[in-house]
Amino acid sequence: MRSMSQDSKPADDATVTFINVIEVPAEQVDMFIAQWRERAKIMSTAPGFRDSRLHRAVSSKTRFQLVNVAHWDSHQAWEAAMSHPEFQARMRALEDDRSVEVSASPALYEVVASYHEETRM
Amino acid sequence: MRSMSQDSKPADDATVTFINVIEVPAEQVDMFIAQWRERAKIMSTAPGFRDSRLHRAVSSKTRFQLVNVAHWDSHQAWEAAMSHPEFQARMRALEDDRSVEVSASPALYEVVASYHEETRM
Repeated sequence: MRSMSQDSKPADDATVTFINVIEVPAEQVDMFIAQWRERAKIMSTAPGFRDSRLHRAVSSKTRFQLVNVAHWDSHQAWEAAMSHPEFQARMRALEDDRSVEVSASPALYEVVASYHEETRM
Repeated sequence: MRSMSQDSKPADDATVTFINVIEVPAEQVDMFIAQWRERAKIMSTAPGFRDSRLHRAVSSKTRFQLVNVAHWDSHQAWEAAMSHPEFQARMRALEDDRSVEVSASPALYEVVASYHEETRM
């Protein structure tokens, strides 16, 4: 385990974190999760995929009901997976579905500071 | 390693994920990170703290420049840490600081779906 980091990046410099902050009405969350799983299954078979966790707010009053945090080997691997035809087709279907009111803010991130219980001084 | 999960929660049922989605002008991000570290140091000494990672957007055009993802042993441990006098004092100082235009959306989450490269079928 590393000591408490300051400006350091994760152990593997090339790794990127994809975070998608999702606003969706509380009553549509269950349906959205079902559709998310289908897309995540496709993404999880792509080269460079590491892991993906969909977080749901404990309270239905939380502004961002869902937050997806995923890790990829590299920026390039993530971009290649995003352009997968089957994934693209499902994204278009989601955008065209007028019954789901989703506002998503997907972006790539890097870890700029981290603290771990194990390395506490 | 577990197989690809569907509705299952993380291995430790009581664990909670705290996510803070932060909007801050790109030119104020560095200053905000410095202040965040001071608060995170306090939180990391609290009972029940597991880890905390501050993510910064790769692009300065990303809406949410910072996303903090932390894990706690329980909802109760997180609440107790939040009420720590020194942490509360720093939060009030941040709120009173008119030079920082921050919009934060902190909330508790649970993992509702997850995929891992190791368990790919």
